[in-house]
Amino acid sequence: MIKTFDDLIKAARRAGPKTVAVAAAQDRDVLMAVDNAYKYGIINPVLIGKRDDIEAIARDISVDLSGWQVIDTADKIEACRKAVELVATGRAALPMKGFVDTSVILKAILDKEIGLMTGRLLSHVGVLAVPGYDRLFVQSDAAMNISPSVEDKVHIINNAVEVAHALGNDMPKVAVICAVEKVNPKMPATVDAQQLVRMNEQGLIKGCIVGGPFALDNAVSVEAAMHKGINHPVAGRADVLITPDIESGNILNKAMEYFGRADKAGIIMGASAPIVLTSRASSDRSKLNSIALAVTVAGK
Amino acid sequence: MIKTFDDLIKAARRAGPKTVAVAAAQDRDVLMAVDNAYKYGIINPVLIGKRDDIEAIARDISVDLSGWQVIDTADKIEACRKAVELVATGRAALPMKGFVDTSVILKAILDKEIGLMTGRLLSHVGVLAVPGYDRLFVQSDAAMNISPSVEDKVHIINNAVEVAHALGNDMPKVAVICAVEKVNPKMPATVDAQQLVRMNEQGLIKGCIVGGPFALDNAVSVEAAMHKGINHPVAGRADVLITPDIESGNILNKAMEYFGRADKAGIIMGASAPIVLTSRASSDRSKLNSIALAVTVAGK
Repeated sequence: MIKTFDDLIKAARRAGPKTVAVAAAQDRDVLMAVDNAYKYGIINPVLIGKRDDIEAIARDISVDLSGWQVIDTADKIEACRKAVELVATGRAALPMKGFVDTSVILKAILDKEIGLMTGRLLSHVGVLAVPGYDRLFVQSDAAMNISPSVEDKVHIINNAVEVAHALGNDMPKVAVICAVEKVNPKMPATVDAQQLVRMNEQGLIKGCIVGGPFALDNAVSVEAAMHKGINHPVAGRADVLITPDIESGNILNKAMEYFGRADKAGIIMGASAPIVLTSRASSDRSKLNSIALAVTVAGK
Repeated sequence: MIKTFDDLIKAARRAGPKTVAVAAAQDRDVLMAVDNAYKYGIINPVLIGKRDDIEAIARDISVDLSGWQVIDTADKIEACRKAVELVATGRAALPMKGFVDTSVILKAILDKEIGLMTGRLLSHVGVLAVPGYDRLFVQSDAAMNISPSVEDKVHIINNAVEVAHALGNDMPKVAVICAVEKVNPKMPATVDAQQLVRMNEQGLIKGCIVGGPFALDNAVSVEAAMHKGINHPVAGRADVLITPDIESGNILNKAMEYFGRADKAGIIMGASAPIVLTSRASSDRSKLNSIALAVTVAGK
């Protein structure tokens, strides 16, 4: 089982190099991240966007484009559609967002003709290494679904579990996190949690053990779970942390990073290939982690 | 300004000892916490509950009751009502929950005849010291209000700001945390955040600077805020973290504790006195911190 980002990068090197279609590659940060992943032997990039701009930036930051394919496109919409088309037709393994708004690449991915959708829901899946914990946490959804229904949460769990499987965890422990451990009709998140646990028991959510509702402490601390008298295989031992909505998911992700000093990765799951959507504010290490995660997931 | 829990305990010693009415004191953990705070010179306890049980437990754990008042009551409901009455009539400075369900003591506090309500909303206010940060964070609401309206959030901010003032911060920076920095009508938390900022600008929320919506990183990291180009006095420098609902508040509080290894305190604000509501799972240090926080707030 992959328990550190160093191990994840090794796994990505074994699974790779994968061809990555970079939509709107005319950006310094994007080209540096791509070049870094290329040098690690994780990816072979196809750069899509304004050729002149890509070449000028590459010269400027001493990135050698000579071995890479560059596809010239008129605008960012076309660049996104081209990147998605390369993946849809098998000429690239996965798409990566470059210097373009998230909404533009998502529109191409969701496009019914060229797109990559297969009836699942797109969700953000984070992977975080918090110092002092013996495992990588898979966390979702921090970025895509504002107020998911219980049906949406089934997709969110399935997408997160697929990532856990790719990390070598065949039967991840999934905690549905709420504010409390008791089901309370006044707190819809707890009712959803109960229903998700039942669906797992009935075999409608497979490949994992779902527990909840849990407060966060009872999901990640065996001692806290024991204190509360919670006796469940997931209690205190969760690998996957599912939050009720975008606020709680985003806050958990960033609390792990900024207060827990976690190293992290993030990808979008739910399409026919994982999508790399690194943000400008991410560290170089975090961008490499995200590309390595996508390549490892795509390799399964 | 108080920046550590050691300083908070010193402040509580200066403000104290305060008389604390302990409702349903017949509990080992409660008596140990009370005895500890008494030995620090922070409180003078009045123990309310089953006298026989209190005395038996005190003997068992070698707590000397000789200097303390013990009020014998028939049941826990009466113990809670008596504790509240002592505070309402000025014979105690603040109430503390003992071995009784939170709902029972809250019912006594909310009781119109004997109670402690003054037209404000009750909310949980946490104070957390995360290693590596130069200040105590005030955080709310992790426990009381499930899905607060924007009017409720005004009370939640006021209660948290009162705590920040008691910590010696005359003009705390209040961040209204959401998943994103942009106001988006599809994300009601961001619309509330915008309204709260306006109310602060109009002088309807006083004694603080309110900023938002912020994602958590832009509230607590100057570097992250700069990366996003956010130029606001609260950005990256928040003292007070206000979350949209009980799930996000509880998750943030516990992420700071379990992932950020924060030392913490928590009290209920909004009544005519702060209420100590330590949970059984809290550490001895956290219980002492919470009592010290309540005494310091009551001393202002």
